[in-house]
Amino acid sequence: MGKGKLIVVSGFSGAGKGTLMNALMERYDNYALSVSATTRAPRPGEVEGVSYFYKTDEEFRQMIERDELIEYAGYVGHYYGTPKTFVEENLEAGKDVFLEIEIQGAMKIKQKYPDAVLMFVTPPSADVLRERLTKRGTESADVIEARLKRATEEAEGVEAYDYIVVNDNLQDCVETVDRIVKSEHNKAGEHISLIKEIRTDLSKQ
Amino acid sequence: MGKGKLIVVSGFSGAGKGTLMNALMERYDNYALSVSATTRAPRPGEVEGVSYFYKTDEEFRQMIERDELIEYAGYVGHYYGTPKTFVEENLEAGKDVFLEIEIQGAMKIKQKYPDAVLMFVTPPSADVLRERLTKRGTESADVIEARLKRATEEAEGVEAYDYIVVNDNLQDCVETVDRIVKSEHNKAGEHISLIKEIRTDLSKQ
Repeated sequence: MGKGKLIVVSGFSGAGKGTLMNALMERYDNYALSVSATTRAPRPGEVEGVSYFYKTDEEFRQMIERDELIEYAGYVGHYYGTPKTFVEENLEAGKDVFLEIEIQGAMKIKQKYPDAVLMFVTPPSADVLRERLTKRGTESADVIEARLKRATEEAEGVEAYDYIVVNDNLQDCVETVDRIVKSEHNKAGEHISLIKEIRTDLSKQ
Repeated sequence: MGKGKLIVVSGFSGAGKGTLMNALMERYDNYALSVSATTRAPRPGEVEGVSYFYKTDEEFRQMIERDELIEYAGYVGHYYGTPKTFVEENLEAGKDVFLEIEIQGAMKIKQKYPDAVLMFVTPPSADVLRERLTKRGTESADVIEARLKRATEEAEGVEAYDYIVVNDNLQDCVETVDRIVKSEHNKAGEHISLIKEIRTDLSKQ
């Protein structure tokens, strides 16, 4: 059992990333989903350690100072960050760790973990995306327009990504992501020592 | 349907590449196996256009002159080469084309097709490789020793490869290769135009 892979997942809101992550975690034992730390209050139904690790401003500040976060960012008055321990412990245990984050955060992750695999999830077309964003609830035209505008910004920097996954059908998408992660374990770097061993061994006789 | 991928497969003799290629072609409709041209005579049981395209020295020389070969090399008095037409027609038709070739030839392919995926197939250990090479027939110790020596040379340059696939169990190996090829179709480069389309489309309203 080698070390796990860090898989960074970004994508348009409305691409179905959350559902995709849940389906992956349910279906495969070898995957772990990184849980973020946040200073915002829990919402009804959210669970400590599952939805988020809930922290006071002071606790969050200490995590930053102790270098316990891989990355963090402020968003509408609250802090959000990725705790390092969870990620590293799972990678060491051989689990592939998924981390859902927007592109700016992904770039910070890639700097610290150059072997991280960057995956961008997209709906099959702008029409489908528009449909998903407008169907979510009974929001006003303003809210919907703001969302569509944000979607155009969410792909800023996608050129740095390794893979693009089209989420048309959830089950297909789950299998595609699983296939990519498994294939990443066949990357030559991970097995070059086996080849060297074989060559040394053969030349010994 | 996009363009197919060119998959270059190399590996130790005794790694089971031939059996692996046959199993892949039998199981998946979307794969094509490149057939080499050669100036050597057909052996019993070999079929023109399946085993090889059999050429006279003069025909082979003309193929070289007309730039009809992606690469070619001489080996014990005969020429072997990869006809360009077969590969390009299948890639255009959206098929993934497999090409079995040693590392030196693979490097020439990669120069002409920078998008080609390089895959190296290996047995799980030197012991297994030794067993496979010595069990093949009733060859003399000399022949076996020459084979083992050649095996150590066959991995020269493997650092340039994208993937290493361990052939322990044939079915697992077939699935691993299929997974890698499918995942290569999710590489960001192939889908970046979709993201651009979505962004343009969303910003239009």
